[in-house]
Amino acid sequence: MVTTGRLEAFSDAVIAVAITLLILDIKVPDASSATGLWHALGDRWPNYASYAVSFLVIGIIWANHHSLIDVVERVNRPLALLNVLLLMAIVLIPFSTALMARYLPGGGARSHIAAAVYSFTFLLMSLGFSAIWLHASRGRRLLIAGFTDAELREITRGFTLGLPLYAVAIGIAFVSAPACLVLHAIVAIYYALAARGGSIRPPTAASG
Amino acid sequence: MVTTGRLEAFSDAVIAVAITLLILDIKVPDASSATGLWHALGDRWPNYASYAVSFLVIGIIWANHHSLIDVVERVNRPLALLNVLLLMAIVLIPFSTALMARYLPGGGARSHIAAAVYSFTFLLMSLGFSAIWLHASRGRRLLIAGFTDAELREITRGFTLGLPLYAVAIGIAFVSAPACLVLHAIVAIYYALAARGGSIRPPTAASG
Amino acid sequence: MVTTGRLEAFSDAVIAVAITLLILDIKVPDASSATGLWHALGDRWPNYASYAVSFLVIGIIWANHHSLIDVVERVNRPLALLNVLLLMAIVLIPFSTALMARYLPGGGARSHIAAAVYSFTFLLMSLGFSAIWLHASRGRRLLIAGFTDAELREITRGFTLGLPLYAVAIGIAFVSAPACLVLHAIVAIYYALAARGGSIRPPTAASG
Amino acid sequence: MVTTGRLEAFSDAVIAVAITLLILDIKVPDASSATGLWHALGDRWPNYASYAVSFLVIGIIWANHHSLIDVVERVNRPLALLNVLLLMAIVLIPFSTALMARYLPGGGARSHIAAAVYSFTFLLMSLGFSAIWLHASRGRRLLIAGFTDAELREITRGFTLGLPLYAVAIGIAFVSAPACLVLHAIVAIYYALAARGGSIRPPTAASG
Repeated sequence: MVTTGRLEAFSDAVIAVAITLLILDIKVPDASSATGLWHALGDRWPNYASYAVSFLVIGIIWANHHSLIDVVERVNRPLALLNVLLLMAIVLIPFSTALMARYLPGGGARSHIAAAVYSFTFLLMSLGFSAIWLHASRGRRLLIAGFTDAELREITRGFTLGLPLYAVAIGIAFVSAPACLVLHAIVAIYYALAARGGSIRPPTAASG
Repeated sequence: MVTTGRLEAFSDAVIAVAITLLILDIKVPDASSATGLWHALGDRWPNYASYAVSFLVIGIIWANHHSLIDVVERVNRPLALLNVLLLMAIVLIPFSTALMARYLPGGGARSHIAAAVYSFTFLLMSLGFSAIWLHASRGRRLLIAGFTDAELREITRGFTLGLPLYAVAIGIAFVSAPACLVLHAIVAIYYALAARGGSIRPPTAASG
Repeated sequence: MVTTGRLEAFSDAVIAVAITLLILDIKVPDASSATGLWHALGDRWPNYASYAVSFLVIGIIWANHHSLIDVVERVNRPLALLNVLLLMAIVLIPFSTALMARYLPGGGARSHIAAAVYSFTFLLMSLGFSAIWLHASRGRRLLIAGFTDAELREITRGFTLGLPLYAVAIGIAFVSAPACLVLHAIVAIYYALAARGGSIRPPTAASG
Repeated sequence: MVTTGRLEAFSDAVIAVAITLLILDIKVPDASSATGLWHALGDRWPNYASYAVSFLVIGIIWANHHSLIDVVERVNRPLALLNVLLLMAIVLIPFSTALMARYLPGGGARSHIAAAVYSFTFLLMSLGFSAIWLHASRGRRLLIAGFTDAELREITRGFTLGLPLYAVAIGIAFVSAPACLVLHAIVAIYYALAARGGSIRPPTAASG
């Protein structure tokens, strides 16, 4: 059987490769003069911005994935499958980041589509997380012991919060792609620093 | 010597990189209008479908590899070599997936070839699994103790089942590439969820 | 929560992928004759030199990252975020290495820009290290017990030393790109071999 | 400090990424007819052959690296540096494999150069291994206890054997590139299966 330790190790490796592949979309520019090179490097700002936001988001996904699996006691086959689906969504992010970087600077309708697709891959990722949590926590079947009902409800709220959030981001994408990217950056930094953002505290009973 | 733990860790890393490289074949389209971008993204459906199926298949390979190595007590040199050959087959999958995605939409004879090559890499992978199992289980030489003869026969049946299955898929490839891809998807989901599909339960005697 | 062990494992994986991606910039040349092939392979010296220096630098980053996390007792959210930012800087290195290799041979102003950007990614990396150390060591909040004040001051000096060093490298970049690359090579070898270069000894009190 | 466990984990990850990157050189062919696709896939035989040989060689490098580090008790700074240099040589192999695959079919002087460069990267790798072993075993300074002088001499012979072997391969490269590739395949399979090929048995005294 797949243990939680192995599920984490494999997920870590996939997430580590996905986060590193983000750099492959930042290409060396061709420039025939020094001024041209400065401009070409500067013109790549949508790549740098998308790279930074996606790197941050995937980094937080990694941390939250550990929080989630930490409270899972055992892995059954549907959970392993849901985890593969989550990874499938995460690995899409280098593609949607490249799409965002390609169409962000032009503005207009194409940038809206790119930002919507970008947000949509985050929504898929959030769906994966929610599905894993709901499957594991339903009747507490795969969780470690000690969670109170209130704790479970709070964690469920934390995990499913991403869904409306990313749905809103898709909406904003059709208004302004840069605003959409900024929103993702703010959400990522909030999640990274907020004491309880999307993370799971071990049950108080277990640690008591 | 290579221990089972290290064999698993290295195989995990190779499988994790291979599964993530699948995304490199989904390229950002060039489009000069919003409508063009929607169409270009939609036209990539063979890439998305192949990506999803291959991701699922490799994810299941990963889980089954653990099931297999879990019941192996020690690694000898031929087993390590067979494992390298198995990984060699798995790492071919990103290539055959790209081939499938490239020729699936056109239909016709080229799509049949692509689907056949795609199925052939799965057959190679299945051959690798069967070879590892047969080498390890022959006279129980590398297995943990406790398997009954009936259990061994059942596992052998489970592992070698992939061979005729993928041979059939190669046949179907020459009739219809989409049907072949759908078959792989169904087999993958079945294996992912079926209680005993391709996986190995530890011997009852050992856990009793 | 993210433990130090998991932070290290994830960082290791990201660094391992980043260091290996360096090879993707060394491309097979097209040549129509044997002499042409020798020359084309020889003309790639900026790629080989940049590859070697960056590989060495990232290898040392990896070792120093372990030295750093070894004396960290627990990971809090800001530390995990700072670590993601450090990785973000490290993963930029394959890009800046490719930029360096592309514009080094031409000489002139473009090579100065490339060398400056190359050094700048190292400066970012050094900033990340300093930030992690300063956050962890401030009031000893995240460190293992046993460091004396003198030891802490010495380590702080070691880590923040990279900042002026890489600032100087940026300056030298605008004089001579090859000299800048040679400087990075010397610094890397010094750090690799020097008993105390950038590394952290565990507190004497703890090991006493 | 870097421990042997971490040195192995990092080396494993780098080797796993390098071995998987080999597939990136096998590209999907463009073909306008079914016959054209069969031919294009068949014409890729130098890619398949080089892929298989390099995959096997790197797989064996991985196993031998564990054998080597298993008898190392502690890592000092020069050893960590030598290990980075070894990895630097291993990561070159995807490049030299692509070079081999590109110029093998044409035959003639260019194929000789490609095969010589290919063999040269293996020689570099072998040099790295020898350097690590000689540094670690000199005066037994970094080894686990229990090796007899005769055992040390035997292992030294096993490790340094690669050097003349790969030098001979470089010579053969200038006669025939296919013969050179076949030689590498034979050596790899021999090393993979031979009871003592390049591997290290733990000291008899320690296990007695």
